[in-house]
Amino acid sequence: MDLKKLLPCGRIIVFKKGEIVKYQDEPIEDVLVLLEGTLKTEHVSENGRTLEIDEIKPVQIIASGFIFSSEPRFPVNVVAGENSKILSISKEVFLDLLMKDRELLLFFLKDVSEHFRVVSEKLFFLTTKTLREKLMNFLVRHMNEKRELTLPVTLEELSRLFGCARPALSRVFQELEREGYIEKHGRRIKVLKDPLEHDRI
Amino acid sequence: MDLKKLLPCGRIIVFKKGEIVKYQDEPIEDVLVLLEGTLKTEHVSENGRTLEIDEIKPVQIIASGFIFSSEPRFPVNVVAGENSKILSISKEVFLDLLMKDRELLLFFLKDVSEHFRVVSEKLFFLTTKTLREKLMNFLVRHMNEKRELTLPVTLEELSRLFGCARPALSRVFQELEREGYIEKHGRRIKVLKDPLEHDRI
Repeated sequence: MDLKKLLPCGRIIVFKKGEIVKYQDEPIEDVLVLLEGTLKTEHVSENGRTLEIDEIKPVQIIASGFIFSSEPRFPVNVVAGENSKILSISKEVFLDLLMKDRELLLFFLKDVSEHFRVVSEKLFFLTTKTLREKLMNFLVRHMNEKRELTLPVTLEELSRLFGCARPALSRVFQELEREGYIEKHGRRIKVLKDPLEHDRI
Repeated sequence: MDLKKLLPCGRIIVFKKGEIVKYQDEPIEDVLVLLEGTLKTEHVSENGRTLEIDEIKPVQIIASGFIFSSEPRFPVNVVAGENSKILSISKEVFLDLLMKDRELLLFFLKDVSEHFRVVSEKLFFLTTKTLREKLMNFLVRHMNEKRELTLPVTLEELSRLFGCARPALSRVFQELEREGYIEKHGRRIKVLKDPLEHDRI
């Protein structure tokens, strides 16, 4: 759907590369649509560490899943990755539009639901598998037909994906190598045994 | 909001205790509203293990966050925990209602967004903290003013919450005890040092 048709309903705000568009925990007062440019989102943890989460490309509604929650706040810092143009629409006007435009309503519901599905799947994945299972699952999913892969992310990033500490992940790599499941040279890995042939890794 | 006003728009389906309402991965064709009874949701993993996830109490829309995703499927088995009554409304009719009834539209958007917020927060929690941080955070959050607590869940459940294996969690408990952060007798724990006084656990 072409969100640019919403242009007459809001006002344009322009951000220079590097400017902060919204701070984490700032209330969400309007519906923001990225029209041009790129935004980066970063999560600030309690101890002040900043973690880059995602990139937002145009044309997209920012933080769509949070806008209508009971105390809507931005879950992350939103930073302009390059010069960017954002359309800001008041929530009341946006609700009016949803009630008038079935296509927009379906688009918005789908947008929110898709984000929800992705986040839920990640959460299920994280909470229902052991670290060993997660890692083998990841390797099998990323290996080519020769059962080889080059890790697409750093160990640091992988451990974050798996919700564990980096040393714990390194230990599991070593275990799998010792037990003959994989061969590892830096980031290049060969899967020797297919764990899916077994009942339980 | 009283979802019972939707009664004239759908049909009632009745389930006996123990009956399966929907299977995991079954397409979501209609909007289902639990009117009476209790539903349980359980996740079936690749290796066939079943894990109880949640309880749904009336009056509530079932799997609201998934209904309008691009390939909507139930993310879990839905089982009747007791004799239950469900209202089934076609998606098209439900969309018509959303466009006519601002209160219902806001209710539904809020419902989906609240679920999204909870799931996102859990995911952030899981992916941005080390196991040690997660555990100390959990203990501090659950301790009373005497800095004592009784673990509200089993180690098995706690390790699932933290996305780690049970032995890894036991090891961290032992570490924290050895380093004088906690005292542990079975499920009763006393927090001796407050880790929030330190910059980084």
